[in-house]
Amino acid sequence: MKKYSLYLVAILGSVLFLSGCGDQNGKASSNGALASNNAEKVYVAPGEHDEFYAFMSGGYSGNVAVYGLPSGRMFKEIPVFSQFPTNGYGYSEETKPMLETSFGFIPADDSHHPDISQTNGELDGRWLFINGNNTPRIARIDLKTFETAEIIEVPNSAGNHSSSYITENSEYVVAGTRFSVPIPQRDMPIKDYKGNFKGALSFISVEPETGSMDIKFQLIMPGFNYDLSHPGRGKSHGWFFFTTYNTEEANSLLEVNASQNDKDFIAAVNWKKIEEYVENGGGTMVPANYTHNVYSDETHSATSTMKKEVLTVDPTKVPGAIFFMPTPKSPHGVDVNPTGDYIVGNGKLSADLTVFSFDKMIAAIDGKKFDGEAYGLPILKFEDVLAGQVKSGGLGPLHTEFDGQGNAYTTFFISSEVVKWKVGTWEVIDRKPTFYSVGHCMIPGGNSRKPFGKYLVSMNKITKDRYLPTGPELEHSAQLYDISGDKMELIYDFPTHGEPHYAAAIPASILAPKSQKIYKLAENEHPFATKNVSDARIVHDGNEVHVYMAMIRSHFTPDNIEGIKVGDKVYFHITNHEQDFDVPHGFMMIGQKNSGLLIMPGQTKTSVWEPKQEGVWPFYCTDFCSALHQEMQGYVRVSPAKSNIDLSWSLGE
Amino acid sequence: MKKYSLYLVAILGSVLFLSGCGDQNGKASSNGALASNNAEKVYVAPGEHDEFYAFMSGGYSGNVAVYGLPSGRMFKEIPVFSQFPTNGYGYSEETKPMLETSFGFIPADDSHHPDISQTNGELDGRWLFINGNNTPRIARIDLKTFETAEIIEVPNSAGNHSSSYITENSEYVVAGTRFSVPIPQRDMPIKDYKGNFKGALSFISVEPETGSMDIKFQLIMPGFNYDLSHPGRGKSHGWFFFTTYNTEEANSLLEVNASQNDKDFIAAVNWKKIEEYVENGGGTMVPANYTHNVYSDETHSATSTMKKEVLTVDPTKVPGAIFFMPTPKSPHGVDVNPTGDYIVGNGKLSADLTVFSFDKMIAAIDGKKFDGEAYGLPILKFEDVLAGQVKSGGLGPLHTEFDGQGNAYTTFFISSEVVKWKVGTWEVIDRKPTFYSVGHCMIPGGNSRKPFGKYLVSMNKITKDRYLPTGPELEHSAQLYDISGDKMELIYDFPTHGEPHYAAAIPASILAPKSQKIYKLAENEHPFATKNVSDARIVHDGNEVHVYMAMIRSHFTPDNIEGIKVGDKVYFHITNHEQDFDVPHGFMMIGQKNSGLLIMPGQTKTSVWEPKQEGVWPFYCTDFCSALHQEMQGYVRVSPAKSNIDLSWSLGE
Repeated sequence: MKKYSLYLVAILGSVLFLSGCGDQNGKASSNGALASNNAEKVYVAPGEHDEFYAFMSGGYSGNVAVYGLPSGRMFKEIPVFSQFPTNGYGYSEETKPMLETSFGFIPADDSHHPDISQTNGELDGRWLFINGNNTPRIARIDLKTFETAEIIEVPNSAGNHSSSYITENSEYVVAGTRFSVPIPQRDMPIKDYKGNFKGALSFISVEPETGSMDIKFQLIMPGFNYDLSHPGRGKSHGWFFFTTYNTEEANSLLEVNASQNDKDFIAAVNWKKIEEYVENGGGTMVPANYTHNVYSDETHSATSTMKKEVLTVDPTKVPGAIFFMPTPKSPHGVDVNPTGDYIVGNGKLSADLTVFSFDKMIAAIDGKKFDGEAYGLPILKFEDVLAGQVKSGGLGPLHTEFDGQGNAYTTFFISSEVVKWKVGTWEVIDRKPTFYSVGHCMIPGGNSRKPFGKYLVSMNKITKDRYLPTGPELEHSAQLYDISGDKMELIYDFPTHGEPHYAAAIPASILAPKSQKIYKLAENEHPFATKNVSDARIVHDGNEVHVYMAMIRSHFTPDNIEGIKVGDKVYFHITNHEQDFDVPHGFMMIGQKNSGLLIMPGQTKTSVWEPKQEGVWPFYCTDFCSALHQEMQGYVRVSPAKSNIDLSWSLGE
Repeated sequence: MKKYSLYLVAILGSVLFLSGCGDQNGKASSNGALASNNAEKVYVAPGEHDEFYAFMSGGYSGNVAVYGLPSGRMFKEIPVFSQFPTNGYGYSEETKPMLETSFGFIPADDSHHPDISQTNGELDGRWLFINGNNTPRIARIDLKTFETAEIIEVPNSAGNHSSSYITENSEYVVAGTRFSVPIPQRDMPIKDYKGNFKGALSFISVEPETGSMDIKFQLIMPGFNYDLSHPGRGKSHGWFFFTTYNTEEANSLLEVNASQNDKDFIAAVNWKKIEEYVENGGGTMVPANYTHNVYSDETHSATSTMKKEVLTVDPTKVPGAIFFMPTPKSPHGVDVNPTGDYIVGNGKLSADLTVFSFDKMIAAIDGKKFDGEAYGLPILKFEDVLAGQVKSGGLGPLHTEFDGQGNAYTTFFISSEVVKWKVGTWEVIDRKPTFYSVGHCMIPGGNSRKPFGKYLVSMNKITKDRYLPTGPELEHSAQLYDISGDKMELIYDFPTHGEPHYAAAIPASILAPKSQKIYKLAENEHPFATKNVSDARIVHDGNEVHVYMAMIRSHFTPDNIEGIKVGDKVYFHITNHEQDFDVPHGFMMIGQKNSGLLIMPGQTKTSVWEPKQEGVWPFYCTDFCSALHQEMQGYVRVSPAKSNIDLSWSLGE
């Protein structure tokens, strides 16, 4: 066991600093002809379309941003775990339930690892899954509408980081805890962490037709940090692999104390075996509060349900289901190649990569060749499962992606580069610098049996001088590499919104034809929809007022609203009667305490307004919708509050 | 007077629909050589920088987005009027006061028209001003830090649309009401609008050194809709011009009833005369509640102050200060050319533009040649002030911008095009289609005496098929034209975040050198800063707990926090001790009810956490900050609530 010291930590910090600041090169344009060529490679002319959709997590924005490749243009930000003033997500009555958790309403989170649903190991473009890292959740985005359709909370979890990855027929989206915690949560001294805290790995089933999620079971694992994960595929389908760090089980100063062991583990989980176990009645149902939030396109509304129990599995009760593979130097990413033959461990405090062989792993398991156990779970012998090591010459490997032509690409945070190497021979083929300090990289379909190995995107953690300066706070930055030839070519830099961690990309040819253009008004099942303009009305119910409103170019019905009193609670239920593509209307009301609404054709949304002052107050359409958009406005008259006597009388009506 | 009918409205709708959908061309790439040339024109190679910063309003995002030109890349979203989960703006204790208004805390708005501060009529790059259209406010962004430094509410206003435009020495940022309202606000029937509702035009002084804003005076004008405005410059400096519509003073079905008059007005306001009037004691101070919110870079905190009165001016009391120029067809934009000689009215229900001569206007005023009056304010004769009419051949002119070489560019919403014409001869020189239905256009410095006429950006209201489809809700779209030659060349399409209305752009050579990189820790005056790691501590004050925390790669001090009880209110005051550029740290705590924090080097931010459940709960750094970022975490132990007896005892300490 080699001891890492504070000295090492200091060195790592210095290297980072130097690599981040020292190299001011990387100008793809220094050669005129090359720049011109690269310009043409990334240019998408007006009227033409990008080749790929890239879904990038927003990190601490809590959202997902949709980019085009190769242009690097951001087409959309999809609100997921965060309030989004732009369209009222998390503010409108219909969408507030999406952000309910067992901790209450949570308006923000930290989204990390998107993954696209698969059929037979290939991207099918139906759904995108993404994890909320802070208050543990998994979301499903419907790729017909590009809206968040479902969010399920993950109980017994904390720092939902080794998430959300999909098995090759989308049987499960898998979520692993980064921080171990007392399970069940209870008051105990933090220093008692070791041996007492536990880490939950959650297998969330995905209903094949609807995509609906349910927690099938949680493995209650030793109290390590479960950092990243990836499914097996092809021959290794049925297994799932998780990196661990802090197998030291330190609870303080982790940057020193969690770097003591020379090797942590990759946990190999035979989920098919556990599935069989629980389907035969195995596991223990335990009390656990967690929300399940579902948005309906028919009612244009979300509902939040509190679930009360979850099925837990003690992994020591399922022999043959879980094995640890010792992996050097605090592994971060774990990645599986397209055929499923190899499992790559990226030891972040190392220069080398460790590649395990699935066949060797199975043979070692079959041969019961173990090197002891950890909390009752067998440890395989490093040498027995090792396929090879990539002598990269880089520092700080984090993640590996594959191009489908037998090559792998690994990012190195400290030495700021992407290294291309050959799967099977482990030889390094090429290396290119990144600017600066790359985290994940992504190849479209790189996490499936069929990657589309034309582009690689590096997602860099430090931006510094890559763009015009914008004060102390900068966007993060991505770089686009052409990987169609033997050598990688850096062809473009583009800023990214929030802090993208991972991304998932898919050819436009698969996804674009599925995209929905409007919601049909005739199919609108919102309970407060105004489907005929003649049904627009104002209904008083005590001091609640419901305004059933219709909007179409270029007016609101009604547009003059009287009979409102100070102290009323006014619900504007607004239905957009347009039935053309891309004719939203917006709604804002002066002094509105939530946010505006953006209402798509055929949709109904609700905003609440509680007038505190008498007067005549305007509202208007916020989305420039026609030549007479500026005329699309109205007024609400607010009269003084009823006296107590009037109010009693009114309530008695 | 020509009557517009519902029939016309229907036609306008149809034209819009056809222009939006029918033309599938506009592919700049149909010619290979041309595409290659355009690719090179917009390509900014890795390691190189854009030529211009473009600040685009976010519309209903409530923010400002910063783009580079010619690349069209978004460098940053600056939160202004809206909560922004990404960095905690509007959620952190320090920034919540920025969103306080007389209506209470408002988490969203509708930002429309940015303008950059000027000195001698040229962009000086010190501040960017932007209006909140819904709950009337003006914000000032500091262009050293790219942060919102100040927000002032505008009382007596509603739909703060003819805002925020700057006079040529940044003497005033001007804000005009779009909707007239009762002044003071009071309960009255909406149908009594005509003659009773009023429109406030607010002149907000800008302190020359600090940029600090104060409402110098409000003109209480007739109850029209004040749509857009622009300052005079050069010879017309000292005047301000506002378009009006709904001079009919209709209060319902405005899309019909506000289009009855053949001509509405452009109001010409001699603000120097009014300034003199108020400086000599003119005007009436009236009660008015409005907030003034200021953010300090020293304390890293905002304060909100409620102001109680505002100086109003009855324009009929200041003879010679305000004149109406009749302008055909519901004018939308009003734009002044760089020399200040001409005022262009864009009558949105017209095909032609109306250009007024400043010299003729002065002559007519001097000659007292009036055509009656409106509410006591003189109306100039149309023919007396007319300089010329641009027979554009387009439909639905909205806005005009200038290139500094004697040319003007006008956008046409209905016919979806930009038309270039010659100032002085009024002849049309060129026209190019937009895709689709353009609102504003923008030339860097186009709203100053010194435009940089290399690029024009059109901000289009309908996107439809311009990018890969992303469901029913789409981003808006901009188009970039090279205007350096005689003919405009469409060279790029790029999506824009939110709903950009107007934009302001400035050469990078002016702005980039001013940009600040870090906040100095030594200058941090936050009252709860932890400037020495050894001062990190936990202070209990009844059931309030203040955690004074320091963060530096890669740990929190303290990282194990005990002594917290259910029911406590825990304030995390976190100071980032990094002093290198671009090393933020983030902070999130499981179940946090506000949002995460993003804390820049040298900064202190505060997050509040109210634990509801006992247990041991993690927090972590959300911004990938070093090779040991994943180790940057900590735990809070939450013990059961004190009993009532314990609590009393504790409070009595």
